[in-house]
Amino acid sequence: MAIYQATTSAPVNIACIKYWGKRDTTLILPTNSSLSVTLSQDHLRSTTTSQADPSFTETRLWLNGKEEDIKSGGRLERCLKELKKMRKERIEDKDHNAPKLSEWNIHVASYNNFPTAAGLASSASGFAALTSSIAALYDLNNFSPSSSAKPSAASPSELSLVARLGSGSACRSLFGGFVAWEAGSLPSGTDSLAVQVAPQEHWPTLHALICVVNDAKKGTSSTSGMQRTVETSALLQHRIKEVVPQRMDAIIKAIKEKDFDTFAKITTADSNQFHAVALDTAPPIFYMNDVSRSIISIIEELNRVSLLNTGHLVAAYTFDAGPNAVIYTEEKNVKQIIELVLRYFPQAESNPFPDPFQLFGGKQPAGTTTLPEGFNEGVAKVWETGSVKGLIHTKIGDGPRVLGEGEALLSSDGMPKTLA
Amino acid sequence: MAIYQATTSAPVNIACIKYWGKRDTTLILPTNSSLSVTLSQDHLRSTTTSQADPSFTETRLWLNGKEEDIKSGGRLERCLKELKKMRKERIEDKDHNAPKLSEWNIHVASYNNFPTAAGLASSASGFAALTSSIAALYDLNNFSPSSSAKPSAASPSELSLVARLGSGSACRSLFGGFVAWEAGSLPSGTDSLAVQVAPQEHWPTLHALICVVNDAKKGTSSTSGMQRTVETSALLQHRIKEVVPQRMDAIIKAIKEKDFDTFAKITTADSNQFHAVALDTAPPIFYMNDVSRSIISIIEELNRVSLLNTGHLVAAYTFDAGPNAVIYTEEKNVKQIIELVLRYFPQAESNPFPDPFQLFGGKQPAGTTTLPEGFNEGVAKVWETGSVKGLIHTKIGDGPRVLGEGEALLSSDGMPKTLA
Repeated sequence: MAIYQATTSAPVNIACIKYWGKRDTTLILPTNSSLSVTLSQDHLRSTTTSQADPSFTETRLWLNGKEEDIKSGGRLERCLKELKKMRKERIEDKDHNAPKLSEWNIHVASYNNFPTAAGLASSASGFAALTSSIAALYDLNNFSPSSSAKPSAASPSELSLVARLGSGSACRSLFGGFVAWEAGSLPSGTDSLAVQVAPQEHWPTLHALICVVNDAKKGTSSTSGMQRTVETSALLQHRIKEVVPQRMDAIIKAIKEKDFDTFAKITTADSNQFHAVALDTAPPIFYMNDVSRSIISIIEELNRVSLLNTGHLVAAYTFDAGPNAVIYTEEKNVKQIIELVLRYFPQAESNPFPDPFQLFGGKQPAGTTTLPEGFNEGVAKVWETGSVKGLIHTKIGDGPRVLGEGEALLSSDGMPKTLA
Repeated sequence: MAIYQATTSAPVNIACIKYWGKRDTTLILPTNSSLSVTLSQDHLRSTTTSQADPSFTETRLWLNGKEEDIKSGGRLERCLKELKKMRKERIEDKDHNAPKLSEWNIHVASYNNFPTAAGLASSASGFAALTSSIAALYDLNNFSPSSSAKPSAASPSELSLVARLGSGSACRSLFGGFVAWEAGSLPSGTDSLAVQVAPQEHWPTLHALICVVNDAKKGTSSTSGMQRTVETSALLQHRIKEVVPQRMDAIIKAIKEKDFDTFAKITTADSNQFHAVALDTAPPIFYMNDVSRSIISIIEELNRVSLLNTGHLVAAYTFDAGPNAVIYTEEKNVKQIIELVLRYFPQAESNPFPDPFQLFGGKQPAGTTTLPEGFNEGVAKVWETGSVKGLIHTKIGDGPRVLGEGEALLSSDGMPKTLA
């Protein structure tokens, strides 16, 4: 008999305008709009296979090969409920020959191709992959051209509403390119969704260098941290009401015009302001450490001399709820930045992450010996090897992909394949 | 013939509501009011001798034994001009037998009893000592009982206007106890002065423990840093207009009621907010480092368990424009806090600062072995010896003191004595 299953992959996204604070913690409705860049799935992705079968006695989930308990009423169930509703209303109620997948339990297997050690938020790509794979299973997706015309198809924005219920920032991983999560104002949250500001083809030369920073101790979880900020920061409301709306308009304009200087200025300013309101929290929340700050000092100094020498900025840095830096830059500047980073942060021979040295023929280059004219070498010390655990060089990428049967994570018996 | 000279000492003050930003950089008028605790001169002080003589061919200044160039129109000259004006109008114009000190050049020698290594702002105590010693030389002071009745006497608030021209925070060192620097609103700055909120006798059990933190690299100077914040922070104006006025009222009330919990809550919140707006600056400004953050984590954890166990807070931390922590606590808690700090920050045998271990018979105690019930040991790692270079245990103190001839830093010939 037929096997009903679908496999999709979804990307990681890194915010330029940060999401920090919920106005509704159950529906995951944010206090402000945010904007992100979708990173290439060629380097970082979550892959999920969903399978429905009348013989399944319960809903089951495997993350990276390990089965997880499914909290009833939890985030996965909330997403699944919405998708089953869509399946029933849009397909099963209209076509009585359509299999009643919405009445069957499902098995889900999900896998991140990046080590959790990276400390990269995997919940965004994870819930985006979950949502898109179930949508594909239910024939609700319009990711593949063939299905794009289907009246039953849900738009990525519609699916972003579902992914949002799993993890707020996941809604932004339903699109490639530059994505805005509009905060919305309805209590129902039906207007709190993701829209694409520009596709990746609009600005294909935008690259990202992730500096994976060694983290001494686990910081505050963003879920609890952001609500502590909402409750105690005297500055957050001003950020929400006065600062973010202006920055959203300005950065969207900068993206449409491919104005890197403005894009970089707003991105770095908003990263710093996010960490500022975290610090304005009681008790204060710290995510950046001395290594993070050295990366900031180096990039700020590089931008300072570049502005003097060329009138333009070279790079933008942004930090999420952890010490890792994400550096955005134009393709033509990536080599210089990698060499600069290596000068201050010597790397071990083996890099634990997808090869960051493609531009150097796969071999780790030496740290740069010639600094830009006027660059103040003393802005940071040379750190001990391993302070930056590794680098990931990637670029702007596309949205969820529907993958072939060959990439399925579940066997025909509904159990996870053992990955090589 | 007569020698006209006076020697005074002045204290360090540490702000609980921070001064960060000038609305007038020449007159040193702040963007917001601030409030500080004056620390005891028994531990930290600047001592200054001023001598006037018709034979002096120029104004000369020695700091810690080394002669300094005096910038014409600089901060010292601005203070001196105001004091000469007071001398002339209040004394020489009224009593024609009074020596015309205002027409003579002066020699000034100033000495800080704490190592600059401490990274404690010496400009506040320095300009307060300079102002008070010249005021005493000119017979304008009312610090000593004998002269308190003099009609010519200038009040500490009047002298705070002069000290402010030298260094903003110096105005707060003209008083002991708890001192408010009222921002004022007049362009002339004549209403931007210090007033005493409460004398040290009001709350004599308030102690301070200064953790002198090893500083890898020199941070941004506060003078340039604060103006960068004024120019670029999107949050500072909200702090100035909405947050600080409320906090000033609330902390003054807390001080008058000796309500340590409220005092501690506001002090820590305002320290964190000051560093938050510094981080919200472009480029961002960092003064705290990972050691500073570990001190915060330890104190926050101590307060958390104390609140659970006793319903009260134990300590407040505050950081100025550097990584050093100043911990305010009640006398009865000092021992516990020193032992807790030593547990995480082992000290070298020799402490470079005035003996912080009086409470332990002058001997360095071991780091505490028994943590408070429920204290999460993992909030910070145990740092390598020397991460905290030393401790200074002091308490709330009095304002400028007029010292005897025996403590003069200048000889009768107007040249600095060589200090043993």
